[in-house]
Amino acid sequence: MNDYRAPLRDMAFVVKELLGLARVGQLPGFEEATEDLFDAVQEESARFSQEVIAPLNRSGDQQGAVLKDDVVNTPAGFKAAYKQFVAGGWNGLTCDPEYGGQGLPNLMGAPIEEMWHAANMAFTLCPLLTRGAIEAIHFAGSGVLRTRYLPNMVSGQWTGTMNLTEPQAGSDLAALRTRAVPEGDHYRITGQKIFITYGDQDFTENIVHLVLARLPDAPAGVKGISLFVVPKFQVNDDGSLGARNDVRTVSLEHKLGIHGSPTCVLAFGDEGGAVGHLLGEPNRGLEIMFIMMNAARFSVGVQGLAIAERAYQGAVRYAQERVQGIPVGMTARAPILHHPDVRRVLSTLKSRIEACRALAYYAGQMLDFAQAETDPALRAAAQARSDLLTPIVKGFCTEMGVWAASEALQVYGGMGYIEETGAAQHLRDARITTIYEGTTGIQANDLVGRKLLRDQGAMARALFQEIRASLPALSGRPECAAIASAVERALVAAEAASAHLLLHAQEQPEAVFGAAVPYLHLMGWLVTGWLMARSAGIAAARLEAGETDAVFYRAKLATARFLADHGLGICDSLRASIMEGGDALLGMEASLF
Amino acid sequence: MNDYRAPLRDMAFVVKELLGLARVGQLPGFEEATEDLFDAVQEESARFSQEVIAPLNRSGDQQGAVLKDDVVNTPAGFKAAYKQFVAGGWNGLTCDPEYGGQGLPNLMGAPIEEMWHAANMAFTLCPLLTRGAIEAIHFAGSGVLRTRYLPNMVSGQWTGTMNLTEPQAGSDLAALRTRAVPEGDHYRITGQKIFITYGDQDFTENIVHLVLARLPDAPAGVKGISLFVVPKFQVNDDGSLGARNDVRTVSLEHKLGIHGSPTCVLAFGDEGGAVGHLLGEPNRGLEIMFIMMNAARFSVGVQGLAIAERAYQGAVRYAQERVQGIPVGMTARAPILHHPDVRRVLSTLKSRIEACRALAYYAGQMLDFAQAETDPALRAAAQARSDLLTPIVKGFCTEMGVWAASEALQVYGGMGYIEETGAAQHLRDARITTIYEGTTGIQANDLVGRKLLRDQGAMARALFQEIRASLPALSGRPECAAIASAVERALVAAEAASAHLLLHAQEQPEAVFGAAVPYLHLMGWLVTGWLMARSAGIAAARLEAGETDAVFYRAKLATARFLADHGLGICDSLRASIMEGGDALLGMEASLF
Repeated sequence: MNDYRAPLRDMAFVVKELLGLARVGQLPGFEEATEDLFDAVQEESARFSQEVIAPLNRSGDQQGAVLKDDVVNTPAGFKAAYKQFVAGGWNGLTCDPEYGGQGLPNLMGAPIEEMWHAANMAFTLCPLLTRGAIEAIHFAGSGVLRTRYLPNMVSGQWTGTMNLTEPQAGSDLAALRTRAVPEGDHYRITGQKIFITYGDQDFTENIVHLVLARLPDAPAGVKGISLFVVPKFQVNDDGSLGARNDVRTVSLEHKLGIHGSPTCVLAFGDEGGAVGHLLGEPNRGLEIMFIMMNAARFSVGVQGLAIAERAYQGAVRYAQERVQGIPVGMTARAPILHHPDVRRVLSTLKSRIEACRALAYYAGQMLDFAQAETDPALRAAAQARSDLLTPIVKGFCTEMGVWAASEALQVYGGMGYIEETGAAQHLRDARITTIYEGTTGIQANDLVGRKLLRDQGAMARALFQEIRASLPALSGRPECAAIASAVERALVAAEAASAHLLLHAQEQPEAVFGAAVPYLHLMGWLVTGWLMARSAGIAAARLEAGETDAVFYRAKLATARFLADHGLGICDSLRASIMEGGDALLGMEASLF
Repeated sequence: MNDYRAPLRDMAFVVKELLGLARVGQLPGFEEATEDLFDAVQEESARFSQEVIAPLNRSGDQQGAVLKDDVVNTPAGFKAAYKQFVAGGWNGLTCDPEYGGQGLPNLMGAPIEEMWHAANMAFTLCPLLTRGAIEAIHFAGSGVLRTRYLPNMVSGQWTGTMNLTEPQAGSDLAALRTRAVPEGDHYRITGQKIFITYGDQDFTENIVHLVLARLPDAPAGVKGISLFVVPKFQVNDDGSLGARNDVRTVSLEHKLGIHGSPTCVLAFGDEGGAVGHLLGEPNRGLEIMFIMMNAARFSVGVQGLAIAERAYQGAVRYAQERVQGIPVGMTARAPILHHPDVRRVLSTLKSRIEACRALAYYAGQMLDFAQAETDPALRAAAQARSDLLTPIVKGFCTEMGVWAASEALQVYGGMGYIEETGAAQHLRDARITTIYEGTTGIQANDLVGRKLLRDQGAMARALFQEIRASLPALSGRPECAAIASAVERALVAAEAASAHLLLHAQEQPEAVFGAAVPYLHLMGWLVTGWLMARSAGIAAARLEAGETDAVFYRAKLATARFLADHGLGICDSLRASIMEGGDALLGMEASLF
C-alpha cells in the first residue's frame, strides 16, 4: 500500500517539455546532459530509491537512530544502503568534476533528489547536508582545504554537517557564542551546537563539520562570525586520518519525526578545544554559510514536494482499493475514489504537487543558468530569478508538503491515524520541513526584505513581465483560456501587493513584514499557477497534434484547470490581507495576548 | 511552559455576554443555571483540569495505554484521576436529574468540557463516550434498561462505549456484519469491532458497550441494523454484577496520538456469543446511534477548539519568553512575540480560536433551547438550528484545531519538533479529531444532503435572515463597521453558494457533493465571523460605557477586526470554488489519477 513509485512521466514532462533540458545542455560544462542520459539516470535512480532506500523508510522510523557508548547507530540497513549510494556514484551527481563529481545540472539533479527524499527522507538528509558542506568548501576553501576534503566528500566517503544553532541562537545567529582561538596554523574550537543533523553516524570513517564560531577579537553580532572546518578525525598531509578531534555527541533529540536521522547535540572542545581550519576570511562566515544554506533551502523545498508525492501516492492507492458506500451518482458500492469529496481531495493534492514540482525544478534550472550562462546579462538575470525563487521554493513547497501529508492521511479515515499504515509517518516527517534551514517566516522575511525591497522590486517586476508576456499565447487556446485568466488575476494581485509593500516599507515596516508570509504564499501561487498554465498549453498542443500518451496530457490539462479553479482564487484574499490588513495586525498589540 | 490555564474570562464572555446564560436560565428545568453557579462550577472545573488531569497529559502520552494479560492498563495516574472525576460529580453534569445527573444546560457544560479536553484529551475521551451511551439509553431504553444502567453510568461508576466500526464497515455502516441471535429475553452477539475508544480500562468495575449488529432476519443495508446493550459484566436484577460477558479485547492500536486513550479491537462471542439487550426497536439501531453520534460530534468539535486553545497558550508563552533577534521597528533583542510574523501567527490563532469558541457554545445553547423551549415553534427552530450547526461545529472546529496545533508548533521553531516541548503532542492528538465520529467529508455531506437540500434550504435561510437582521446595529458603530461589512460579504457569498447547490443538486449531484467541504468551510467562516462581529459590538458598547476590564474588551474588538480582515476574505474564494469549480472537478476523472 505504501510503496513508492517515482513519478517518472511527470518528472520528464517538467524537465524536458516544460522547462527544456535541451537549453541547459547547450551551456558550457553541461554538454553531457542529454535527454538520453537523463532517461538513463532517472531509471537508475528510481530503482535505487524504490528498491534500496524506500523499504527502509518505515523500519528506520520505528528503530530510530540511537546513541550508544558515545557513537550513533543508524537504523538497520541504513549503513549498507549508504555504501550502495556511494558505490553508485550518486553523491557527486551535481558536483564539480575537478573533485570527482559528475557535473550534471541541477535540472537533472532535482528530480533525482525528489526521488530520494520521497523514498526515505531521514536517510537522504545525510547527503543533503554533505552537499551543502561541499558547496561551502568549494566556494570559500583554500586550495589545501579543497584538495584535502572535497574528493572524499564528493565521493561520499566522508559526510559533511552544518553547525549553526546553539541553544540561545536559532534564527538569531548573531547571538552565537562558540569560540575559536588561533593556535599555529589552526584554531581551537569550544562550544555547544544543537540540532546537528547527522552530527554523527556509522556510515563513514570521517565527518567534516562546518562550524560557525567567533574569533577572540571578533566584533559583536553577525559581522563577527567565522566559519571553520572541524573534521571528526584530523586529516594528515598525505590524506590519511589522524587523531580523533575534540568533538563529541552529547545526546540525540527525541523528535516528532525523521527518527532515522540522528539530530545531535555536539560538544566541541570539552578536552581543550577541537582543531579547526578557517574557511574563507575571518568574520565573513555568515556569507559563506548562506552559500550552503541556499543550497540546503532549495533541497528542503524539494523535500516538501517529495513527501507530498509519497503521501499522495499512498492515498490514491488506498482510495482505489478501499470500497465503502455507494458514491453519489452510482448504484453500487465502489472504491472511495468515486466519492466526490475524495476525488476533490486527491485532485487538490495532485494539482498542488505537480505545480510545486514545476516550481522546484524551474528554480533548479535557474541555478544552472546562473552558473553557466556565458552572456553576463543572462547570467545575472538567472541569478536574480534564482535568488527570488529560493525562499518561495523553500517556504511554499514545504507548507504544501505539510498540508499534503495531512490531507493524504485524511483520505484513509481512521486507518490513517494508525502508525502501521505509514501515512502518519509522512506527516511527522514533513512537519520539520517548514522549520529547519529557516522557518517559513524567515523565508518570507528574506523574500520581502532581501529580494523585493532591496532592489526596489526589480527582480519581481522582471518575473511579472515574463508572466504577462506569456499569457496571450495561452488565452488563445480555448482549453487554456480560463486557466490563463486565473493566472492573470493572480498576477494583478501580486503586482498590486508588491507595489503596496514597496510603498509602505519605510513608514510601516511592521505591517509590511507582518504581511511577508501571505506575500510568499501569493508569489508561490502565482508562479506555480503560471507554470501549470504553461504546462496546460503544452499539453493542449500535444493533444491537438495527436501525439501518443494522450491520457497523460489530458490529465495535465485537467489538473491545471483544477488548480486554476480551486486553488488560485486564494490570491485575491491574500492580496486583501496584505494590502488592507495592516491596521488590524498593528491593532493586535503585544499586551493583548 | 506547557501548563494549561482555563481561559475563564473569554468563556464567561461568550456564555454570559454574547449568548446570554440568563435566557437559558429562564427555561423550565434550567432554573438553577444562574451566573453565580456558572462562576462557581467554572472555577472548580478549572482547578480539576489544571491540577489533576493536565499534569497527566504528557506522561499519559509517553506511557500510553497497554494491553497486558487481556486487561487494559491506563497510564499512571489516570485511574486515580478518574476516581476524583467521579467523586466530584463531574460525569453527570448535564445529565437527567432523574438518574442522578445535575441537569445543567449544555451552555454551561460546553466550557467545562473544553477545559477537560484541553487539559487531557486522551483522558476525557472516556467520559465523552460514556455520555453518548447515556443519551442513547436515555432516548431509547426501556424502563428496565434505564434503571439498570443509567444511574451507574450517570455517576460514572460504569463507563460506556460506542461499537460501530468493523474492518469492512467504517463510514459505510450498511456493510456491518456483527450478528445478534435471539435467546430468551436477550440476544447472543458475535462479531469483531475495531476502533473502540476505551473499549476496556482499569477505571471501573463495569463497562457498558453499545453495539450495532444485525438480527438473523434483518433486511440488508442500513435498515437492518439494531442496537444492543452489551455490558462487560452482566447485571443481575438486584443491580449487582453477574457473570463476565463474552467480550474480549484482542489488541490495542498503535496510533499517531491520544496514546493515553486505549483504542481497542473487541471480539464479541468467541465463546458462544455475548449476552446483549436490544435497545429500542429492531432494525432501528441507526436512528438511535445518531443520537449518541450527534452528541459525540458536538463534543469532538469542542475537542478541536480545546486542543487549539492549549496549543495556542503554549505558543504565546514561548513567544513571550524566547528572545531572538531584533524585531523590525525595535532597536534591541526582544521576545519573538514582537516579530511581526510571529504576531500575525498568534493573532490568527487567537482570532480563530475565539471565533470557534463562540460557535461551539452557541450550538450548545441551541441544544438547550431545542430541549427546553416551551413554545413549540421556538423549540422546532432551535432544533433546526442545532441540526444545521452540528456538522459545522464538528467539521470546522476540528479542522481549525489541527491547523492551530500545527501553527502553534511552528512558533517554537526547532524546539516545536522536539517531543519534550509538548507542542508536537497537541498536533498528534488533534489529528484524529477531523476523522473520528465522521470525517470532515462526512460532516460536509451531512450538511449539504441532510441539512441544506432536504428542507430546500429553509434552515440555512433562517440563519441567513438572522445574520442579515443583526448587521445594521453593528454597521452603525464606527469600530464595527468594517467587521460588519466583511460579514455581509461572507453572507452574500454563503447565500449565493447555497442557492447554487440547491439549484444543481438534481442535475449535477457529483459537483454539488464535491463542493460540500468548501461549503462547510464557508458556513463555518460565516457563522464564526458573525458571532465575532456581535462580540465586537458588545465590546465596543462596554468600552463606551467605561466598564472595567477594558483590556479584555479592547482585545476582543481587535481580535474580531483581525478575523474580519485576515480571515473572512477566504469566503469569496470558497464561493468561487463552489459555484465555478464543478466542471474542473468533474474533469478529474477517476482514470486520470
